[in-house]
Amino acid sequence: MIGSDDRLLVAVSGGKDSLMVWDALVRLGYQADGLYLGLGIGEYSDESGGFARRFAEERGLRLIEIDLRQQYGYDIPAGSRAAKRAPCSACGLSKRHLFNAAALEGGYDAVVTGHNLDDEAAVLFGNVMRWEEGYLGRQYPVLPAGPGFVRKVKPLVRLGERETAAYCVLRGIDYVLDECPMAVGNKHLGYKEILNDMEARSPGSKAAFLFGFIERAHGRFAGDAEEERDDLGACTQCGAPTPGDVCAFCRLVERAGGAMPSGSSPVELRRKAG
Amino acid sequence: MIGSDDRLLVAVSGGKDSLMVWDALVRLGYQADGLYLGLGIGEYSDESGGFARRFAEERGLRLIEIDLRQQYGYDIPAGSRAAKRAPCSACGLSKRHLFNAAALEGGYDAVVTGHNLDDEAAVLFGNVMRWEEGYLGRQYPVLPAGPGFVRKVKPLVRLGERETAAYCVLRGIDYVLDECPMAVGNKHLGYKEILNDMEARSPGSKAAFLFGFIERAHGRFAGDAEEERDDLGACTQCGAPTPGDVCAFCRLVERAGGAMPSGSSPVELRRKAG
Repeated sequence: MIGSDDRLLVAVSGGKDSLMVWDALVRLGYQADGLYLGLGIGEYSDESGGFARRFAEERGLRLIEIDLRQQYGYDIPAGSRAAKRAPCSACGLSKRHLFNAAALEGGYDAVVTGHNLDDEAAVLFGNVMRWEEGYLGRQYPVLPAGPGFVRKVKPLVRLGERETAAYCVLRGIDYVLDECPMAVGNKHLGYKEILNDMEARSPGSKAAFLFGFIERAHGRFAGDAEEERDDLGACTQCGAPTPGDVCAFCRLVERAGGAMPSGSSPVELRRKAG
Repeated sequence: MIGSDDRLLVAVSGGKDSLMVWDALVRLGYQADGLYLGLGIGEYSDESGGFARRFAEERGLRLIEIDLRQQYGYDIPAGSRAAKRAPCSACGLSKRHLFNAAALEGGYDAVVTGHNLDDEAAVLFGNVMRWEEGYLGRQYPVLPAGPGFVRKVKPLVRLGERETAAYCVLRGIDYVLDECPMAVGNKHLGYKEILNDMEARSPGSKAAFLFGFIERAHGRFAGDAEEERDDLGACTQCGAPTPGDVCAFCRLVERAGGAMPSGSSPVELRRKAG
């Protein structure tokens, strides 16, 4: 998952999972910087950004910040409306693109996210309900690097939400407690509820679902994800991998009335990706 | 699924699904006899048997009956306690074995069951939650014949429970309305509830789950099921396919204090199966 000399970029939201994984990696001696995205979701963003900054400052860690509104001319609430995408869809797309691009630009070996067992099981649940072959092939605790992609790793997939919260309490880490207000009522949270109900009736069922998939089913779908990757070309605007001419992120920015920052260069991104 | 000259044996419970599929097959001109198992579940069995018998009598159809208590010396309530199996597990095992054995003995080409979309989606849900590779490989609307196995077909997998009930109402078919009292609170019904909640929030999700599996995922597991079949030998007591020396049905009968009827011959079963 992670080599001892790897330079890591941790996707930091200010919540318990991302602060835990950053803290744990630094304690274990890894070189890990943080990246915080200003999503422009009102008070929630102000507050979560505050937790991320205080965490980094108190520990003398480097926190990179990207503000969607300032640097790309849109935020998630306005952008999702303009692009007619659900907020969580516009947000996930923005995060995936920008974490990967920032890691490539900064020469990092991997992007680390704090996804825990509850998150991963709920994502898997949604992918299985629709049998999304490509998504199922990509759902794994380690996604290797490829042309245009840095490695993605999820070290916390074996820990439940209550365990990452307990870690933060024991380590004295302050984190944002609120859920994102735009996520209220989304399918992902509905899947978490279903899995929590099943866990209450049959303890261990959540772990059996996720790890059973990883051990006995993921390999059956991995080929689909590899084929999809092989078919990607470079976005004509930003150079990111895309199945079409212009990547979904550039289309989102355009429809949301924003613009790519002048410093970003497609050629640069592709070269580093190779 | 079914050839025009096939001799079919319909697994009849007295409920809406099995009576619908029997009715529909006969109307379509197929040769279809029924098989009813007397499970010995108190009033529920008395009542459901009555519906099956009246249906057959009124239409001049042939209904074969096997009574577990009279012919095998056990019933589901006592047998499941003695064998320390959940009632639904002892019942499912008994049904699978006896429907297959009766079809082989009677020279039928296929066993037809009334499993509908709701049933199949709930079974799939349970198998996916535990990633039961072998069960996933065998979950398909048609299971081909093999050594010791007749073909199994489920013509109603595209119809929901409300549709099969509506068919029976429109055709004037009386069927047992009660659920089996031993099934109350079992996991299968819990999975049905979860899927019904999801269907209410996202109409079409149940069909997307089952047919997505059939179209895009089943083939990835089919090899496991074939390998399991290839590894089966003949039960030393009854001749049925089994991974061990004595099949699970014979062990259930023995532990439940019952006995195989004197007329049944292992050699006979195996010969017909080939």
